[in-house]
Amino acid sequence: MIISKTTRELSPYVAGEQPHDKKYIKLNTNENPYPPSERVKQAISQASNTELRLYPDPQCTELRKVLAKKEGVAPQNIFCGNGSDEVLFTACAAFFRGFSPALADITYSFYPVFCKLLGIAPATVKLKPDYSIDFAAFTAVAQNNGAILVNPNAPTTKSESVSDILALVKSTKNAVLVDEAYIDFASVPSLAPQVLNYDNLIVVKTFSKSYSLAGIRCGYAVASPQAITALECIRDSFNSYTVNTVTQAAATAAVLDDDYHQKTIAAVKQGRADVIARLSAVSRDVRVVTPDSDTNFYLLSCRNYTAEQIYAALRERGCLVRVLNAVAPAVRVTVGTAKQNAVVVSAVADMLNHD
Amino acid sequence: MIISKTTRELSPYVAGEQPHDKKYIKLNTNENPYPPSERVKQAISQASNTELRLYPDPQCTELRKVLAKKEGVAPQNIFCGNGSDEVLFTACAAFFRGFSPALADITYSFYPVFCKLLGIAPATVKLKPDYSIDFAAFTAVAQNNGAILVNPNAPTTKSESVSDILALVKSTKNAVLVDEAYIDFASVPSLAPQVLNYDNLIVVKTFSKSYSLAGIRCGYAVASPQAITALECIRDSFNSYTVNTVTQAAATAAVLDDDYHQKTIAAVKQGRADVIARLSAVSRDVRVVTPDSDTNFYLLSCRNYTAEQIYAALRERGCLVRVLNAVAPAVRVTVGTAKQNAVVVSAVADMLNHD
Repeated sequence: MIISKTTRELSPYVAGEQPHDKKYIKLNTNENPYPPSERVKQAISQASNTELRLYPDPQCTELRKVLAKKEGVAPQNIFCGNGSDEVLFTACAAFFRGFSPALADITYSFYPVFCKLLGIAPATVKLKPDYSIDFAAFTAVAQNNGAILVNPNAPTTKSESVSDILALVKSTKNAVLVDEAYIDFASVPSLAPQVLNYDNLIVVKTFSKSYSLAGIRCGYAVASPQAITALECIRDSFNSYTVNTVTQAAATAAVLDDDYHQKTIAAVKQGRADVIARLSAVSRDVRVVTPDSDTNFYLLSCRNYTAEQIYAALRERGCLVRVLNAVAPAVRVTVGTAKQNAVVVSAVADMLNHD
Repeated sequence: MIISKTTRELSPYVAGEQPHDKKYIKLNTNENPYPPSERVKQAISQASNTELRLYPDPQCTELRKVLAKKEGVAPQNIFCGNGSDEVLFTACAAFFRGFSPALADITYSFYPVFCKLLGIAPATVKLKPDYSIDFAAFTAVAQNNGAILVNPNAPTTKSESVSDILALVKSTKNAVLVDEAYIDFASVPSLAPQVLNYDNLIVVKTFSKSYSLAGIRCGYAVASPQAITALECIRDSFNSYTVNTVTQAAATAAVLDDDYHQKTIAAVKQGRADVIARLSAVSRDVRVVTPDSDTNFYLLSCRNYTAEQIYAALRERGCLVRVLNAVAPAVRVTVGTAKQNAVVVSAVADMLNHD
């Protein structure tokens, strides 16, 4: 059969392994080590008794209402999707076709993939030597093309300041898309409330990280009503009902249990500080490349080891991590529970002793 | 802010109303009037206790296994998505960019919308005067471009024969995409097993109609392994995990309860025969435009009434239907339960008596 040329030329995103056996401590896709709120479980059970024969509420009315309250905006500032990847793709389709948005050379690797599918050629802008964003270079491109950035950036784990990002937003009438997948673990605040001041700022968030709900697929954008209308226009050109009834109920319950959310975030941040300190103390040959990580993961190098060797050694010892050589020869390790983090520390020590 | 030209020029699909109050008998979006299987409810409750903190299985392993068994194919012949609309969009992106696929002038109105978003200009082919597909004209276009069709067709409710569609499939090396959203209510068999013989045949099905699961969003394609790989390539260019964990569990349970599925289908078909007979008996002024409907809906006309007038009169009497003037000045009415169908019959009789 004939497959179209545009399809043959794609290089799809490769997600982390999702092993079916349970023998690994899974620290390779930046999931949350803690379970979701009990109220989420109840909401899902209850949703099984709702009228699932009917299409979902395409407006996600309840979910948008609670998200608006949480973010300090109005429901018409919220757009929900089937995971933040879908929301980001929708935003690229809505705002960047016909433009070459600024994109850091080291960033979430799904962006170039979205762009390729959509026929968008982003303008790659190098990070500075300290892995921070070069705002002068970014602004030069963004002025007439907009920009895509992730704050804190993945995989560098570094945050940029609100004032630097807002200066970029002010410099252009094109969209500035800020992916805040990891913002709840960061030392900087979310830009979400700023959408009330800047109609070209689009902030995207996810339930997959701090809410421990990667399995339900839900993400959302916070933006001006005109930007939200553009997102809806794209969505309604490929799938009118992207967020199913059960996911809407689960996500709503998660937002309403703010106490649990805050506790989980605090636990992950504490775990991050502990594991980075303990790893750094293992030996002079161990280097946490991102000692000040603002995300729920860190990059780990070991002198005389390639990333692939560290990956294999940790896998052999029951820890699944991901090779990520963009910043240094390193593996990317998700922050786990105290127990899981201890296994990582032992595994690294054991690897070094073994040789 | 600047919204790209391609976005401004879109005309998104407009789905049927989803009223939030419950005062209407909702017969406007071809949902199933019967609830899903009890086993689905149990599966959803159980899924609330699984590790929702983890990303879903991107391969939908269990679901593809049970679907393969049901369709008489292998798991590598199955691709799952977030509702069949997403699967259809993915297929358009995979197979039709750079081509002008044949598309009937009267068909599911989401197709031109998908195509517009993707920069595809389909070649519109007129239906014959009896609203069947003009296969000679279709083949002439499809030879070098492929084709998109819905069998049975919506909104005409008419099925085409397996032999006619297979002749079309044989005439081209391009993809022939057959949307079988309503096939379980039809008098013709599914083409799904034929994907083992034709690598360019892509059959798409949904859980939203015969399985009573519009609320969970699940659809799937049955096709050759090379076609499935192309679909996966597109999916992994916009969202690696389109089918969430709960939906995978719910859909799997639905497929496994085949007895219930068959009973529901039989009940809808019986209801369809009954309501069409009773409406046709109301008065000589009432015409069921589609007396031999092969779908779970029918088109209804009344002499001296516009579709908009029938819509308003039925709405006033508690029945929500949809104006659909493509075939005749008519409303499209979903087959309901016996009780719901009786309300439609009374409402139509009352409307006529009222004047």
